[in-house]
Amino acid sequence: MTATAARQAIAERRLTADEYLQECLERIAEREEPIGAWEFFDAASARRQARAIDAATHPGRLAGIPVGIKDIIDTGDMPTAYGSPIYAGHQPAWDAACVALLRAAGAVIPGKTVTTEFAYFSPGKTRNPRAPEYTPGGSSSGSAAAVADGMVPVALGTQTAASVIRPAAFCGIVGYKATYGSFSLAGVKAFSPSLDTLGILARSVDDVALVRQALLDADEALLEIGPPRFGLCRTAHWSAADASTQRTVEQTAEQLKAMGASIVVRDWPAAFADLTEAQKAIMAFEAARSYAHERLVHSGRLSAKLTELLALGLACPLSRYREALGIAEKCRSELVRFFDGIDAVICPSAPGEAPKGLAGTGDPIFSRAWTLLHVPSVTLPLATGDNGLPVGVQLVADRHRDGRLLALAAWIERRWPGYSSPRNNPRV
Amino acid sequence: MTATAARQAIAERRLTADEYLQECLERIAEREEPIGAWEFFDAASARRQARAIDAATHPGRLAGIPVGIKDIIDTGDMPTAYGSPIYAGHQPAWDAACVALLRAAGAVIPGKTVTTEFAYFSPGKTRNPRAPEYTPGGSSSGSAAAVADGMVPVALGTQTAASVIRPAAFCGIVGYKATYGSFSLAGVKAFSPSLDTLGILARSVDDVALVRQALLDADEALLEIGPPRFGLCRTAHWSAADASTQRTVEQTAEQLKAMGASIVVRDWPAAFADLTEAQKAIMAFEAARSYAHERLVHSGRLSAKLTELLALGLACPLSRYREALGIAEKCRSELVRFFDGIDAVICPSAPGEAPKGLAGTGDPIFSRAWTLLHVPSVTLPLATGDNGLPVGVQLVADRHRDGRLLALAAWIERRWPGYSSPRNNPRV
Repeated sequence: MTATAARQAIAERRLTADEYLQECLERIAEREEPIGAWEFFDAASARRQARAIDAATHPGRLAGIPVGIKDIIDTGDMPTAYGSPIYAGHQPAWDAACVALLRAAGAVIPGKTVTTEFAYFSPGKTRNPRAPEYTPGGSSSGSAAAVADGMVPVALGTQTAASVIRPAAFCGIVGYKATYGSFSLAGVKAFSPSLDTLGILARSVDDVALVRQALLDADEALLEIGPPRFGLCRTAHWSAADASTQRTVEQTAEQLKAMGASIVVRDWPAAFADLTEAQKAIMAFEAARSYAHERLVHSGRLSAKLTELLALGLACPLSRYREALGIAEKCRSELVRFFDGIDAVICPSAPGEAPKGLAGTGDPIFSRAWTLLHVPSVTLPLATGDNGLPVGVQLVADRHRDGRLLALAAWIERRWPGYSSPRNNPRV
Repeated sequence: MTATAARQAIAERRLTADEYLQECLERIAEREEPIGAWEFFDAASARRQARAIDAATHPGRLAGIPVGIKDIIDTGDMPTAYGSPIYAGHQPAWDAACVALLRAAGAVIPGKTVTTEFAYFSPGKTRNPRAPEYTPGGSSSGSAAAVADGMVPVALGTQTAASVIRPAAFCGIVGYKATYGSFSLAGVKAFSPSLDTLGILARSVDDVALVRQALLDADEALLEIGPPRFGLCRTAHWSAADASTQRTVEQTAEQLKAMGASIVVRDWPAAFADLTEAQKAIMAFEAARSYAHERLVHSGRLSAKLTELLALGLACPLSRYREALGIAEKCRSELVRFFDGIDAVICPSAPGEAPKGLAGTGDPIFSRAWTLLHVPSVTLPLATGDNGLPVGVQLVADRHRDGRLLALAAWIERRWPGYSSPRNNPRV
């Protein structure tokens, strides 16, 4: 059952928060061992939270909805290790702002989902629920797997390069990365503050919209909209997408047209050519500063991948960092023109299906530029690739058009033929 | 002795870190009771740190320099209470990135300086060292007072509205607020992430430049420059400045001209008219999210001033917040034109001398717009007002021109007639 459906049922007293949680706990008991989505889990605490919600007079927007929290996000009642042995067992003194807002809205926080090391590339134990020999993607690996596997309806992730969109696409669920700055990152481990953004992983767009309101602490209902106008955007990296991904994006454009949307081709602007490299420079430069304590005091306990990133960041001259920031700002000023006449672009979510093996988490190439542009994006599980694994399609809108973007995504979700069954969709 | 002079003496073995620290400790022992600059102080730990520096082979850029750390910034070896009874005695598990960088550069961290409650308006115990019945300003109250009183040569502050520039001006020292994003805020309590910026309080511009390099973890030596070009900018709030402040800024322009600088008048652009109100909206909106845990769990332990700000933030519609962000971005795109033909503007640092009384920290009106514009600024203690208290003059340059801005400030400092004596200046 989706969060939206469960919340309705709980509000109407057809279901209790405790019963809904029990379904999740049973699924987790059955599936956690092969999947490994959780870094920490506390069923007893979750049950107490659910019963408190059932007893409350004004239980809030997310009354009784279990939400998985990426273990890069502080929780005052559960350890938070940021995916690193340095912080194994570390107990923050209080909740991150996003967790406090979820709790205040009535959410149940049952545990912490696996993250890669400090939200970069070194994976944890999580497997892809669609195929256990394949990566779930990262860095929000456990959040994507837990949601895809039906352990929780929704989970929080964070994105600095592609850490929400990529795992959501690989696991066949909905992923939403907000406009930069929309959600508070207070109490979330900083990686690259010019890029870091909170995101939501869910099995339906409605559920994303529901959680988003709690995180904003503001009403922003999902609007019904008329036929949207899309731009098919092959981006600067089309050749990095495999054949089934290219086919999926192009067929999506055709299908959207058949559904009544208008479609134009939107070329990657020449001005955007350097964005992906700029994102890499900014991420490395800022990571070397954000992780100063870890780099200077615990260097022996960092992975080779992270060590390499931090060395790159220290080798990056200030002038190059500033140039990269300048490129981003200039490109952001072009966004109004880029989105002129369209509501959103459609493009690949990732180069292909989830890669085989658990040593890596796949390539963030199809999100780096968008993340640096600060635009909101959504991935929808619209297709299946040659290996039988999910292929996502990414929708991207202009900054602060998150409400409209989610409305577009819901428009697609409601009309897409055969959308639900292979993807654990709630409307089945 | 300034940090720059001490570092030279320590490098040449004319002074040990331990001896330099001893001078600071004596001053603190003598003056802490009337001033109240420190929230926490650990002389024994500081001595151990200094001796370790004296024993080190490569002691670093800040070898043996004691640096006060505003108590909004996490330290792994000292409690951090963020100016709130909620967190009295709270011990972070590790150092903020900025503290880790200072330590790696050889700095000695003797304690935590008093901050207002969560870096907003409710003051701590600190008094102005120039006149104990007057506010030291805030929110970096203890950092400004400790430096002004000669307890430490330098200290870290943070600024969301005017929290570095205002206390530095009121206490008669040099204050520097960096270009937004220049310094990592990892491990610094978030207030309003679109505005929060680290700053440095010191008794000389050279000292600011020295600490800045450690925080950047990059070489950026202070350049010698030729005669600068200044714009006299009365801002939108000239009438809020008292007569002695207006006179000071105008006489500064005359004096700079006499020293060989060129001066033009730079009007406040019409496009900038809404910046101060936009800053207020953004600060309130974001504070209500950043302080979600405190607001939702500890509301009874927040001051009336903070409670009012958070209520304002919750009442601010998303549309108004987005509009305010849009105003800021548009104005930032005008900055190149605003600074065309000049190196920096000069303007008031605050409406006047430090106000009498310890219940408030003064008005941030002369920094709100600059902070929102993300530009770097410096206040220099160039004059004395009618009450005999310091009056600062603020210099503001375009974003990422921090190195040039500090060079301009040093150019003034070295040439300003009679600069040193009343302001505890190191060159006496």
